[in-house]
Amino acid sequence: MVNGFDPATASNLTPESRKLVERRIALLGPAYRLFYKDPVEVARASGVLLYDSEGNEYLDAYNNVVSVGHCHPKVVDAITKQAQTICTHTRYIQKGILDYAEQLLATFDGPARHAMFTCTGSEANDLAVRMAKHHTGNQGIIITDEAYHGNSELSAGFSPSLGPYSPLGTFVRRVPAPDSYRIAPENMGQWMAEKVSEQIVDLQRRGAGVACFIADSMFSSDGIFSHPTNLLQPVVDVIHKAGGIYIADEVQSGFGRSGEKLWGYQRHGITPDIITMGKPMGNGYPVAAAVMLPEIVEKFGRDNRYFNTFGGNTVAMAAAQAVLNVIKDEQLVENSLKVGKMLREGFEALAKKYQGIGDVRGSGLYIGVEMVKDRSTKEPDAAAAAAVVNGLRARRVLISATGAAANTLKIRPPLVFSAAHADRLLTEADAVFATL
Amino acid sequence: MVNGFDPATASNLTPESRKLVERRIALLGPAYRLFYKDPVEVARASGVLLYDSEGNEYLDAYNNVVSVGHCHPKVVDAITKQAQTICTHTRYIQKGILDYAEQLLATFDGPARHAMFTCTGSEANDLAVRMAKHHTGNQGIIITDEAYHGNSELSAGFSPSLGPYSPLGTFVRRVPAPDSYRIAPENMGQWMAEKVSEQIVDLQRRGAGVACFIADSMFSSDGIFSHPTNLLQPVVDVIHKAGGIYIADEVQSGFGRSGEKLWGYQRHGITPDIITMGKPMGNGYPVAAAVMLPEIVEKFGRDNRYFNTFGGNTVAMAAAQAVLNVIKDEQLVENSLKVGKMLREGFEALAKKYQGIGDVRGSGLYIGVEMVKDRSTKEPDAAAAAAVVNGLRARRVLISATGAAANTLKIRPPLVFSAAHADRLLTEADAVFATL
Repeated sequence: MVNGFDPATASNLTPESRKLVERRIALLGPAYRLFYKDPVEVARASGVLLYDSEGNEYLDAYNNVVSVGHCHPKVVDAITKQAQTICTHTRYIQKGILDYAEQLLATFDGPARHAMFTCTGSEANDLAVRMAKHHTGNQGIIITDEAYHGNSELSAGFSPSLGPYSPLGTFVRRVPAPDSYRIAPENMGQWMAEKVSEQIVDLQRRGAGVACFIADSMFSSDGIFSHPTNLLQPVVDVIHKAGGIYIADEVQSGFGRSGEKLWGYQRHGITPDIITMGKPMGNGYPVAAAVMLPEIVEKFGRDNRYFNTFGGNTVAMAAAQAVLNVIKDEQLVENSLKVGKMLREGFEALAKKYQGIGDVRGSGLYIGVEMVKDRSTKEPDAAAAAAVVNGLRARRVLISATGAAANTLKIRPPLVFSAAHADRLLTEADAVFATL
Repeated sequence: MVNGFDPATASNLTPESRKLVERRIALLGPAYRLFYKDPVEVARASGVLLYDSEGNEYLDAYNNVVSVGHCHPKVVDAITKQAQTICTHTRYIQKGILDYAEQLLATFDGPARHAMFTCTGSEANDLAVRMAKHHTGNQGIIITDEAYHGNSELSAGFSPSLGPYSPLGTFVRRVPAPDSYRIAPENMGQWMAEKVSEQIVDLQRRGAGVACFIADSMFSSDGIFSHPTNLLQPVVDVIHKAGGIYIADEVQSGFGRSGEKLWGYQRHGITPDIITMGKPMGNGYPVAAAVMLPEIVEKFGRDNRYFNTFGGNTVAMAAAQAVLNVIKDEQLVENSLKVGKMLREGFEALAKKYQGIGDVRGSGLYIGVEMVKDRSTKEPDAAAAAAVVNGLRARRVLISATGAAANTLKIRPPLVFSAAHADRLLTEADAVFATL
């Protein structure tokens, strides 16, 4: 795993950390992973700051779940008040879920949609792809090379970034990510549509057909490819022509992350058939959703019911409503755009000083900084990326890395990140780059 | 769906209810279902009482999620305090998850286990079966005829109770539930093991082998079959002999529901390979888990990582810890046993008055009352069950129905149900039975 802690190096840790790591392995087993060479212990948090149990402060430039800031009082209050009032499921009539669904659905341009609530982005993607198969009668799923879409059997089966030993589904096919650092942007939409078409032909030849193409419009786990923004419409077109549907996975790119729009897919001007969302939706409260055109759920809803005990429960809806209010009231999409631009300009300035920085990209507060061994060959430098991530962690600034070659710094702070926080991150990054 | 509202009858509702139902269909689409002929609108709740927005009180004899009582102040406080402090994921070191895992694991008898946290029971069952396949190298899944285990593609694929149009997985095989009302109990364990063996042979002949048998020890959606308690060990034996593992789905039967033990499987004296849990774990906060023997997750943990963004987050663990504390402090397992016995005795007394009651069964506060047209033929009477469920709803007492023939009353109140609540439920039931 990119930026994973290796338990074999536990002897390098302080006795206290080592004890906690050993206890964790004994209790939680071998499938759990920690971040960083020297894992971070967390005790409390506020805004964009985390603290360990000794009171050391960390600048959080990584956590996208708490996108309105750690422990935002309005979200905590909404959860508390609703948990004191009633916490129950969707088989009774409640007004909160209707009010929230109405407001949420109003944020999508184009035709009317339905909203279905789950607890996690994995569940939302699992449901979306089940629905795609049921609606189209086809089996094939097309994704990008290093996509991540979830942890259920179905969604892990179309999440190649889980690594080479995590099995992919029989009718899952991969296309290269739109690597804007290495591919000329002029015809990238056409190029991508052709790659998708090749996989459609293969799926059709095997009798599976294509149920869906699913992608995150920022291509987060492929390495964060935010531009150009005209490349998804040609993909939508070839998928529709083959009888499949387009699923926009907005778990990472939604709720203002891109700075330009509330939803990442809107930057591409497309109309997805299903849109899934999760992570920041409840600022940490487990809530997620799939939002679809009515015709997509028509047969599914006739043949199946969908009930998720905690999905769309009264408290989840209260948390989600508070988050949506805060995003609007505090103008966080606008802040994401403004501070994101400052950060990218800052990294571009650092790129003038440090040859190891090959590319700076992103949109809003989702920024990728690709580390290379040589700017002419663009050879990925995973070791440099790991050194920056761990160097920043030593200076108590939290980021991570991503991409097939694990060489792209992943900078993705809460949307309340300010100009001063951006300065602090850039200053610390400068100091770390200087040591490479 | 058993006890589902039919939208075609919306014209029978009050204008206010009708408007809410129509708004719900427009916003949430056709896959959502409401309970009762006349759906219940809920606005607040406390203990075992629910209230609609007009202040009408309902006795809750159905909701097992809020098992320590609606809005229990200790659970609400734990959620609030932790949400104010930090809400983050398991890739940082936290002490809360370790403390809770330690206490949770101490409740299972037998060998040491690992705990892995998810948000929903569906996710826990999906993970458990993925792990069963990865560990055994086999594909086959054996369940009971009307089992329900979840809503992901994988878990819906072994949940036949979702109805005849919800697709089952290719290598999913069904065995009859241990219907103690119709099958002599003497050799039921042997009978069940033989049924499972027949399916193992079929799976092996198709080259799939058997990965697991998964069941809820109360057979909730099959119709609540709580006895005899010596029937699962023979099943464990044949599954193990064929190279499969045994998964105890404790989402419904765990956390004291059965009254006799904290975990339902413990009533059968077996040692499952994986135990899954969910619903009441956080009293409504989305938290669930799979708990497994170390050897089951060894290869899985080497080949895969498992990360669930909200699973085991700090607030989920605080909620779960509070629930576990309350179950112990308020002696809710003991209360479940005591009040459950009163309820069963009460329904047995009603069975002397009303010929439509064919069988009363259950353990603790999970009670099934089977309605039949004729005691000699035992012919199921779904219409009578629906009439009782809706008759009680009209008297503001909430229960539901279950089973393949939808003729078994499902009585499953929060574990804080008192003797007085039991009296009220029985009095109202008597009045409704009298009208049949």
